[in-house]
Amino acid sequence: MAIYMDYQSATPVDPRIAQFASPYLTQGFGNPSSLHSVGLAARGAVEDARAMVATLIHAEDPGTIIFTAGATEANNIAIRGTAQRNFSKGKKVLASAIEHISVINPMKDLKKAGFDFATIPVDHEGIVNLSALEGMVTKETVLTSVMYANSEIGTVEPVKEVSDVVHSKGNYLHVDAVAAEGKLDIDVQRDGIDLLTLSSNDIYGPRGVGALYIKPGIRTQPVLVGGGQERGFRPGTEDLYAIAGMGEAAHLASNEMQSEQDRLRAMRDALIGVILKINDSRLTGSRDRRLPTQASFIFKGIEGESILLTMDAMFGIQVSTGSACSSKTLEPSHVLLAIGLKHEEAHGSMVLTLGKGNTLEQVPAVANAVKQTVDRLRALSPLYGK
Amino acid sequence: MAIYMDYQSATPVDPRIAQFASPYLTQGFGNPSSLHSVGLAARGAVEDARAMVATLIHAEDPGTIIFTAGATEANNIAIRGTAQRNFSKGKKVLASAIEHISVINPMKDLKKAGFDFATIPVDHEGIVNLSALEGMVTKETVLTSVMYANSEIGTVEPVKEVSDVVHSKGNYLHVDAVAAEGKLDIDVQRDGIDLLTLSSNDIYGPRGVGALYIKPGIRTQPVLVGGGQERGFRPGTEDLYAIAGMGEAAHLASNEMQSEQDRLRAMRDALIGVILKINDSRLTGSRDRRLPTQASFIFKGIEGESILLTMDAMFGIQVSTGSACSSKTLEPSHVLLAIGLKHEEAHGSMVLTLGKGNTLEQVPAVANAVKQTVDRLRALSPLYGK
Repeated sequence: MAIYMDYQSATPVDPRIAQFASPYLTQGFGNPSSLHSVGLAARGAVEDARAMVATLIHAEDPGTIIFTAGATEANNIAIRGTAQRNFSKGKKVLASAIEHISVINPMKDLKKAGFDFATIPVDHEGIVNLSALEGMVTKETVLTSVMYANSEIGTVEPVKEVSDVVHSKGNYLHVDAVAAEGKLDIDVQRDGIDLLTLSSNDIYGPRGVGALYIKPGIRTQPVLVGGGQERGFRPGTEDLYAIAGMGEAAHLASNEMQSEQDRLRAMRDALIGVILKINDSRLTGSRDRRLPTQASFIFKGIEGESILLTMDAMFGIQVSTGSACSSKTLEPSHVLLAIGLKHEEAHGSMVLTLGKGNTLEQVPAVANAVKQTVDRLRALSPLYGK
Repeated sequence: MAIYMDYQSATPVDPRIAQFASPYLTQGFGNPSSLHSVGLAARGAVEDARAMVATLIHAEDPGTIIFTAGATEANNIAIRGTAQRNFSKGKKVLASAIEHISVINPMKDLKKAGFDFATIPVDHEGIVNLSALEGMVTKETVLTSVMYANSEIGTVEPVKEVSDVVHSKGNYLHVDAVAAEGKLDIDVQRDGIDLLTLSSNDIYGPRGVGALYIKPGIRTQPVLVGGGQERGFRPGTEDLYAIAGMGEAAHLASNEMQSEQDRLRAMRDALIGVILKINDSRLTGSRDRRLPTQASFIFKGIEGESILLTMDAMFGIQVSTGSACSSKTLEPSHVLLAIGLKHEEAHGSMVLTLGKGNTLEQVPAVANAVKQTVDRLRALSPLYGK
């Protein structure tokens, strides 16, 4: 009986969503740009989905939502497009030190193009240092990017406070909400967000589609060029199946988030409770400002990759170590380094991310597997207890 | 009984492909970058698909294929990425005058960035003027883009001859094969192609995925930045469902293309035969060098948009007028202008593109609908016969 606890890396599509979207493959498959009836029906499906996504994040209206090919593309548009479009206001950009690589890398590209890029420090729980931010933002800071929550350590950022600081100088705030969507009640208006990145798969929708919220009045520009789809921001024939699926995913998330997250929060707390009984184990991230689905640890003296492989091979439990995108590199996680861990500590990380397939009944088996894995690897480790 | 004849605008997914790919939504849904068993299975599915796509175009090996979010993204990488990566060799780029907007617009962007961009003229059938090309290519021409075939007029380009001219000066040839794939036997090695763009949907696979062939040794660079997926060329978690579907689509196209295209060619010829009996009608594009699935016309004195709407509303037949991507603009097609049509002629275009849902038995009904539509619109037209 496999137990999948790596929802941050990949999420199965909710069967209800797959069923909802499937007619768009073979029947309602038109090109939304076509003027005939098949095209108009497709256009209607895209607009329905747009309204659902807007509702999920309490956006002003559906027109604020642009569908993209995923969160990476949305982050690229939000960062590169916005910085380049507004460079006459200034050439400074900021990102928190624990942003996803699809935020960090466009920022680094901007640096090559002559922008001044700096990272905002976080404390040992991963919370953005607001007074440091205050000292860094100037009128020339055209864009600041701070995530809603971090998938690797579960920390939820004080987005509204960040927004107040950023807007006190009159600049734009971009928020990558991929880890938080469907888990927290995101409200772009209440939270003071100018640009927000969403992914479909992270709310149990099809992969290959994401969305970018662009607050009315914010000026940005596309990265890819071609046809005029999505107000010119995302050229290419709309991926109708995936977009319809993302709409339904947003719809279900809006309705079911509260009860589902209460359920998973209880499970998370039970997991954290038993796993922290293991000697020389620590929770990473914040205990209080934490995603309801996330439990992450470091274990002294052993390697995260070995934990992952042992948990998988011996117990059929899939977990993660650091961010999935960099899990094939040997570099320690930049997130764990940013919260002050040493290189050798940062290598011993295990991340559990919970989802619809998990139940409270799985906790004892998972806790037992973690205990046995850690004991076994430590017995083999030249670094532990010697 | 609706008859769909607009396969170039949007193609239904083959139910066999939908069935093949569907387990990747809910069961084999892993992140190919994850090191555990669920991730490794996903990695295997991506590599299987890559091999199928390589086979379809007779590529050297699967490693030449990069999956993208669609043809537009593949064209953007091929053009912007290759020109920028090789700008030290020269700053001239060329494209045929009838390229897709997702080729033309990245070229225009390069022009803004200091490149010299010129369009290669085509003759009245839409065939690239090889002697003009010969006069235009120099050692400083870092990239030339000529499509395999044009979706709007059906013309098949002399790709091998173009390649010989381009390579006689030592530069790169990019070929957008979206209209030709699955219809013609594309062989990147025989045809002398350095970069080739493919779309999944045009071979009955899921939308939201495409591929770029990069010949070994060709240096290019990504447009979007983020994680290291697809050798860094296409960051973002792989859209496993769509990629697996594109692989199966390539597999079926490799096996079934010949018989299916023979069937559709016969239908195309029957349609052209009867429709050209209408007064003041003309075929656009080449009669001989023509996609087997494509029949396109202009009718004097009437508007393509009215033809499309009348065919749809009165006869339940979906057709296109010009390229779908620009069908909501009032500009006449740049393709029809490039083959020498006047503005008023270019507005009267109707494009039929055939696919798996079409049969020879539909020809009389379609021909009758076209005749009645043209007669009706001409009776209302202030431009015709007055």
